[in-house]
Amino acid sequence: MKILALESSALSAGAAVLTDGVLVSEQFVNNGLTHSATLAALADKALADAGTELDGVDAIAVSAGPGSFTGVRIGVSLAKGLAFGAGKPVYGASSLEALARLVCPRPGLVCPVMDARRGEFYNALFSYEGDRLLRLTPDRAIPAVQLARELGEEQTVLIGDGAAKAAELIPDLTDGGSESGRRIFCAPASVRFARASGVALCAWESFLEGDMGVPADALRPSYLRLSQAERERAGKGSQNSLQSAAPDDAPHESEE
Amino acid sequence: MKILALESSALSAGAAVLTDGVLVSEQFVNNGLTHSATLAALADKALADAGTELDGVDAIAVSAGPGSFTGVRIGVSLAKGLAFGAGKPVYGASSLEALARLVCPRPGLVCPVMDARRGEFYNALFSYEGDRLLRLTPDRAIPAVQLARELGEEQTVLIGDGAAKAAELIPDLTDGGSESGRRIFCAPASVRFARASGVALCAWESFLEGDMGVPADALRPSYLRLSQAERERAGKGSQNSLQSAAPDDAPHESEE
Repeated sequence: MKILALESSALSAGAAVLTDGVLVSEQFVNNGLTHSATLAALADKALADAGTELDGVDAIAVSAGPGSFTGVRIGVSLAKGLAFGAGKPVYGASSLEALARLVCPRPGLVCPVMDARRGEFYNALFSYEGDRLLRLTPDRAIPAVQLARELGEEQTVLIGDGAAKAAELIPDLTDGGSESGRRIFCAPASVRFARASGVALCAWESFLEGDMGVPADALRPSYLRLSQAERERAGKGSQNSLQSAAPDDAPHESEE
Repeated sequence: MKILALESSALSAGAAVLTDGVLVSEQFVNNGLTHSATLAALADKALADAGTELDGVDAIAVSAGPGSFTGVRIGVSLAKGLAFGAGKPVYGASSLEALARLVCPRPGLVCPVMDARRGEFYNALFSYEGDRLLRLTPDRAIPAVQLARELGEEQTVLIGDGAAKAAELIPDLTDGGSESGRRIFCAPASVRFARASGVALCAWESFLEGDMGVPADALRPSYLRLSQAERERAGKGSQNSLQSAAPDDAPHESEE
């Protein structure tokens, strides 16, 4: 089972090839260039480094959100294009689960955090049972104060491009201040940001559980909330309808 | 502080650029090609993806062993060449510490393991104090039974190309068999193998502690034991001298 994985949901971008659960090649950039300019070339290089071509892979995996609206669209669009053109199935992975899969098995909580702006983080909580990653919450956009409450006294690792900001905010939001803050640690710089290897591993684990992926046209991005354009349009009708359209605790999946 | 890091001490190879503690680009391959054919191109690509050239980096970091003799020689030679040519300082990182730096902060032990053949593993033990990685042992080549004894009942994560083999051997070598084996978990495939980002992070942490690196000609590989050719030559003189030349628990640094 050879998987080509794409990641462009956050600041970093990448591509990787995972063959039967072993990472064979990976490209990672966090250089400020727009993903539209880099992602396809990263995929090409990852395939070449793995000694294969698009025809040689069995499936395409992509980080389908949540994250940057533009980034998610670029990744999902490229995945759809490649999968449609080559007639391959697609795995749409949660960008948060993909981050969690960069963390080694550990006691306590695994807490991917992406800066969702407007005072919120895209987040989901995970923990390890042995070497099995377990999901404890759905993907959601929540304010730091709610995240702080949920983490409680658990020993937690934060990972993702919101990690440093969350690590700064959360200790001040919990009882005990700086003392209780010592329970919360950021992933090291070597694995802090989103990587395609995490996306590939999500797809591989799904495959092992019998998930065969979906056809290109069935792949849907997961935005969790409305885009700015949609919010502005909705705002012209009714200010109140916004809240009900995308409440923070009831993820809303809009379609492209 | 912009660091170009090279990793070729084990099966995988890679190059990365870390700028002021932030990973900007990384190349990773684990494709069976010889490192001599790939490493320089990976370094070129990592520099290009980071929007820089060799002249633009402040230091070269390299995984200086232990590991594959040939792999270490290729990495160290390339690092020396680049550093000498460009007049940059070099950081020689422990390949084992570089692996440990791919593991997120956690309670328990961090245990990088590389298959050293002849029934041994290259290994060192680390633990986290908060988000600070602490070294508990020097780098050494030890048999699985000694590693099993040292791990005791600690919750441990194994990382590196010897992880799967060690995880298989160690439970049978400890009291309690498979039950106690549950304390030992392998790093996920996304971060299992040696990466240049870990090497870069070693150099960055050294820099933060005031280490300014060394000139190219002062960089020494760390083999921990004699190469096969040296063993064979020594064996012609005296079989016994081998043991004293490179005892397993007293790392021996041979010079190129």
